Amino acid sequence: MKQIRIGLIGTGYIERCHAIAYSQVVTVFPLKAELVLDYLAEITPELAEQKAREFGFKRATGNWRDIVNDPNIDVIDICTPNFLHKEIALAAIANGKHVYSEKPLALTAADAKLMYQAAKKAGVKTLVGFNYIKNPTTQLAREIITKGEIGEVTHFYGTHNEDYLANENTPLDWHCIKEKAGLGALGDLAAHIVQMSQYLLGQEIISVIGDMQTVIQTRPNPNNLQERLAVENEDQATALVRFGNGCMGTIETSRIACGRKMGLSYVITGTKGSIIYTQERMAELKLYLHDENPARQGFKTILTGPLHPDYKNFCVSAGHGIGFNDQKTVEIRDLINGISENSTALYPDFEEGYKVSRILDAIALSCKQKRWVNVEEIE
Amino acid sequence: MKQIRIGLIGTGYIERCHAIAYSQVVTVFPLKAELVLDYLAEITPELAEQKAREFGFKRATGNWRDIVNDPNIDVIDICTPNFLHKEIALAAIANGKHVYSEKPLALTAADAKLMYQAAKKAGVKTLVGFNYIKNPTTQLAREIITKGEIGEVTHFYGTHNEDYLANENTPLDWHCIKEKAGLGALGDLAAHIVQMSQYLLGQEIISVIGDMQTVIQTRPNPNNLQERLAVENEDQATALVRFGNGCMGTIETSRIACGRKMGLSYVITGTKGSIIYTQERMAELKLYLHDENPARQGFKTILTGPLHPDYKNFCVSAGHGIGFNDQKTVEIRDLINGISENSTALYPDFEEGYKVSRILDAIALSCKQKRWVNVEEIE
Amino acid sequence: MKQIRIGLIGTGYIERCHAIAYSQVVTVFPLKAELVLDYLAEITPELAEQKAREFGFKRATGNWRDIVNDPNIDVIDICTPNFLHKEIALAAIANGKHVYSEKPLALTAADAKLMYQAAKKAGVKTLVGFNYIKNPTTQLAREIITKGEIGEVTHFYGTHNEDYLANENTPLDWHCIKEKAGLGALGDLAAHIVQMSQYLLGQEIISVIGDMQTVIQTRPNPNNLQERLAVENEDQATALVRFGNGCMGTIETSRIACGRKMGLSYVITGTKGSIIYTQERMAELKLYLHDENPARQGFKTILTGPLHPDYKNFCVSAGHGIGFNDQKTVEIRDLINGISENSTALYPDFEEGYKVSRILDAIALSCKQKRWVNVEEIE
Amino acid sequence: MKQIRIGLIGTGYIERCHAIAYSQVVTVFPLKAELVLDYLAEITPELAEQKAREFGFKRATGNWRDIVNDPNIDVIDICTPNFLHKEIALAAIANGKHVYSEKPLALTAADAKLMYQAAKKAGVKTLVGFNYIKNPTTQLAREIITKGEIGEVTHFYGTHNEDYLANENTPLDWHCIKEKAGLGALGDLAAHIVQMSQYLLGQEIISVIGDMQTVIQTRPNPNNLQERLAVENEDQATALVRFGNGCMGTIETSRIACGRKMGLSYVITGTKGSIIYTQERMAELKLYLHDENPARQGFKTILTGPLHPDYKNFCVSAGHGIGFNDQKTVEIRDLINGISENSTALYPDFEEGYKVSRILDAIALSCKQKRWVNVEEIE
Repeated sequence: MKQIRIGLIGTGYIERCHAIAYSQVVTVFPLKAELVLDYLAEITPELAEQKAREFGFKRATGNWRDIVNDPNIDVIDICTPNFLHKEIALAAIANGKHVYSEKPLALTAADAKLMYQAAKKAGVKTLVGFNYIKNPTTQLAREIITKGEIGEVTHFYGTHNEDYLANENTPLDWHCIKEKAGLGALGDLAAHIVQMSQYLLGQEIISVIGDMQTVIQTRPNPNNLQERLAVENEDQATALVRFGNGCMGTIETSRIACGRKMGLSYVITGTKGSIIYTQERMAELKLYLHDENPARQGFKTILTGPLHPDYKNFCVSAGHGIGFNDQKTVEIRDLINGISENSTALYPDFEEGYKVSRILDAIALSCKQKRWVNVEEIE
Repeated sequence: MKQIRIGLIGTGYIERCHAIAYSQVVTVFPLKAELVLDYLAEITPELAEQKAREFGFKRATGNWRDIVNDPNIDVIDICTPNFLHKEIALAAIANGKHVYSEKPLALTAADAKLMYQAAKKAGVKTLVGFNYIKNPTTQLAREIITKGEIGEVTHFYGTHNEDYLANENTPLDWHCIKEKAGLGALGDLAAHIVQMSQYLLGQEIISVIGDMQTVIQTRPNPNNLQERLAVENEDQATALVRFGNGCMGTIETSRIACGRKMGLSYVITGTKGSIIYTQERMAELKLYLHDENPARQGFKTILTGPLHPDYKNFCVSAGHGIGFNDQKTVEIRDLINGISENSTALYPDFEEGYKVSRILDAIALSCKQKRWVNVEEIE
Repeated sequence: MKQIRIGLIGTGYIERCHAIAYSQVVTVFPLKAELVLDYLAEITPELAEQKAREFGFKRATGNWRDIVNDPNIDVIDICTPNFLHKEIALAAIANGKHVYSEKPLALTAADAKLMYQAAKKAGVKTLVGFNYIKNPTTQLAREIITKGEIGEVTHFYGTHNEDYLANENTPLDWHCIKEKAGLGALGDLAAHIVQMSQYLLGQEIISVIGDMQTVIQTRPNPNNLQERLAVENEDQATALVRFGNGCMGTIETSRIACGRKMGLSYVITGTKGSIIYTQERMAELKLYLHDENPARQGFKTILTGPLHPDYKNFCVSAGHGIGFNDQKTVEIRDLINGISENSTALYPDFEEGYKVSRILDAIALSCKQKRWVNVEEIE
Repeated sequence: MKQIRIGLIGTGYIERCHAIAYSQVVTVFPLKAELVLDYLAEITPELAEQKAREFGFKRATGNWRDIVNDPNIDVIDICTPNFLHKEIALAAIANGKHVYSEKPLALTAADAKLMYQAAKKAGVKTLVGFNYIKNPTTQLAREIITKGEIGEVTHFYGTHNEDYLANENTPLDWHCIKEKAGLGALGDLAAHIVQMSQYLLGQEIISVIGDMQTVIQTRPNPNNLQERLAVENEDQATALVRFGNGCMGTIETSRIACGRKMGLSYVITGTKGSIIYTQERMAELKLYLHDENPARQGFKTILTGPLHPDYKNFCVSAGHGIGFNDQKTVEIRDLINGISENSTALYPDFEEGYKVSRILDAIALSCKQKRWVNVEEIE
């Protein structure tokens, strides 16, 4: 069995989720290649050593270039803050590595385009960590739509709202600084729901008009709490969108939405039925079908179970629940199996990551210029 | 005690709701005047006679002008299809009657303006039937916002979605014909949520950009089901809005939203908390406050009860539920008591009705011209 | 058209609900007789005069015997505290009046039996105010069960929990005193769910074993808050029951159930499906059917609407909501129409009221004797 | 670092959950010993080989005695059908192994007692797989109760209802056969909620009276579907219980509860507040507190997050969700860390498993003899 050797470059919370997913994926899914947790980079050699031990990696380094340049590594897994994605990915691609990057792919669509084109030219495979679409429940939603069960989709309403910056005294961090994060809530959160809308509908967003605001304009300097620094990107944004087939949509995002802890949600209306979902109840899908006995119509709450995509590998009983890291585990299954077979494309790849960045940039431009923007206007 | 004599001009479903509300209001609330159900007009004398008997009115006529011209009538209550509001209201005002009209006030903002100005000049009182704001639960939401409990409002998301025209084979009716209804879902449904947003926030919508669609472009001719006629106004619309204080908002409306039976809803985010409400659970308000023990935070489901506005007149126990007609009963209490006292203004009056029409027209214009429209551009 | 003249004897909160229902019923439903609000008794002549004015009754008295002895009264409506039901009802029956009594019918099954037998002998019609079964949503539940949609019922779980005495410093009132109220939570609350279980299943409870407790054993004397008086009946009770067809059930009741404001609820399991309901969401029924595509199974939330029993008289649009007093309005429609036609029996009548009392007494006895009790053991 | 070498004996679905938990626990939690997945037994050597590869175990065997007798094994993990627990556990204990067994511990309380006493005498540590109490959300519930936030608990209502045998044509399997499973729904499901009630309240159940039924009395022979065989144990059971401190409770269980997929739930009422939970929404706890502003009271929906026990090791953001296997991961963390330190007791151990069996046997006895049974009557 072929080996696939992972080089993980990362910090923080999402790195840990990747590590948990790597540790369980071999038990949860039959893989088509042998997964080798090989090399891990962190910001210092000491931290790298510690994390490597914790996460079961063989080798550690304080310099990510060691991993990118190591001939024994097959896949570079990028869990760094956004502003480093581009440099690491381009270096990895240049060395012929497959690349698995967290979202958003880059700070701008222009950067994302460079990355996608470099990967295409190099013939390496790529995957972007839009993990929420790997949830069995959202896979089920896509299945219902694809089979035409709710008819033709006529409206998409999607949100990704959280409240991690709702308190005005939460100190400034890299998410609020343009050159570290790029966009604010749009890049950090809306990237997910924008990509998910395209996944669910099988359609691309082609034009947008948005509105956005930095509600909390200054935050404490983390190094000197008495001082307040400017927040450089948007706290909240909303956009009207049109998909390629003419379907109308609305995208809302906020990082100051008090009470919304994991407010990724969608309401999808079709000519024959509707779907409602919120990530806070990630194992439930609400489905309405219009063609039954009208005296018995209503939204049905479907609990995800073994009859739905990928669930039964976690548990054979319905309604027993899967968690956040389980989504990541499905994603890594796709990564390993997709790389092990030449014929299989990974999804969502850098091209999709670029398309999402383009839409986010188009929304930001439409906010600035107060007009509808065709996504194609963004290179 | 002064008498207030009602002349009801109407047809159909909302006329019946008014009648039920008139019948119970005298028992539910202490009124400041004696309510007299005096004169009722319907489309034929026979139907008028029947309805008068059913609804407890003394006199009946097949000609609404009889009522408008009757010197013994104090209030004209207009429950006709939209296109008749203007003519009846202007005639009533000319005769010095107070006018209580169903929403939307008129087919266009221009017409609504005529009506509002005529009433102002004549010194008569007016009320528009935006009954949902009279629900104790929504009154509670306003109280929470007004008292600053959720801080400064930073975002308003509101919908009025229903599915009464979701089936493409539902025959065409007056709602789909421009000269009878004016706008489609915007006029019939969004009028409510637009007005409610202003009521809840105590702010006016000043600029808008919308998108809209007639999804089902033809419907069976009700007189010849083999033939299909064109639908002349929008099935769904969405708009980004800004309130006077800069607060961002989104308004969504649809009459083809499969499964949404009474999909009037709002999500209001403030700097210290949030409120979530749907009319389908009209006796529940979800409230999140950010400043408690963070390990015990969450949305609280408040069941409306006697400690909330106007509830205890219906029932002295919390959570026992009030119904659709009860909202109308509060509205009619406001009508009677407001008219009985010179000093009290009715709310929402024709001026507010005109402002709502202006916003709806601005949304329609912004859809057509694909640009942001200042509400003031609409006369 | 025949007249039916009402004599209302009452106090307090439920009297007011009756009054509201009387005021709207004539508009909501076509009645088969003319309803006359004739005579009202309260505890003083002054209060009676005031209430008669408020509620639209013609005459008033401070002595209920005046009404019971008045030859012009057809129906005696009893809204007094429980301990007076028997005396008033027997006097009314002796004078050939029909009797409409609030629940529980009497302080003991023995008393209820006297009342039921007297009415039967006198040939007068009787109705007990178990109004919750008149809610369109619960009528729908019965329809689903009766049609066999959930197969044979195999389990009934029902509660009536509230928290009106949850605070240990709420002063003692008549509900806590045996000779005024009889049983505690069982009589005041469980009466509803016990009766409702029989209505829904079309089966009678034949044997029971219960457990009960007075959790808060003393309460402030309302006339001297420093003093605490003994609470004489149960705060909470639970019982296992068997219906006539062998179906198992559980009944729970509490008046100290913190947070439950209108905690009347049922979970009904059948061989083919299940129903879940709570009165706090009185316009929603959850229905699960087992025989559909297993990958699309789930509980459906049905919003009550015009396709369900009695709803369309209140409103022709689904999901618009009906309230607490609307249930009472259906009950009074049944009263008037049932009395106007010789052939129609009222339901639930004093016989059903007696049966319910018998079950409650059986539960109390089983608690005391710590054994299963056949309901027939109670006379 | 000390090694703890696991010998896993199992089949089926729960074995797989253990395997997934073993694979991720080392990444999720800091362990106090090195976990070694050493030896795995299945019903054939071939299957054992395959599972060992899948689950990352070093060695495999078709004979569980090989593992029990292997001096290199520290912990025997028993995932077999119920009827084998006793024999394996006693053999393991005799060899001085620590034992980690799935629930219910044994077919009868008498057997469970033997096991518990043997372990106590041998001085080995034991753990029973009541994994649902390891869910951060249920740990939070216990924390709230223990801290007195809802006052003194006055009532416990708990269920474990599922529908895996709701279809009468589901063939008979070992769950329905007395000598393989012991009790039916009581043993398979109610074991969880009975144990959980004791965990949550910190009180033991001391007396019970139950009722039970085998609703579907025959099922197809799995080897000859035309033939129907008798179901030998109960499909559903309900019991009233009393805890040591006098608190009342109700336990319900069913394996034919149409629509309940993971119907483990509890409603806990205290003198100052209440808690509501269902495992189908395993990341939500509903909490009501009675002592706030009465006009803002309501059940709060708390989404489990990093401020609650054990959550942050899975994810640092609230509301992101944990899954079924994550509970098992917490359990295995407790196992490894508990064994690695002499001073730490495992919970819930065989003594608790025995106590639960005793309660279940007492319920079964009370059903048969139709009387209250003191749990102490069961040896």
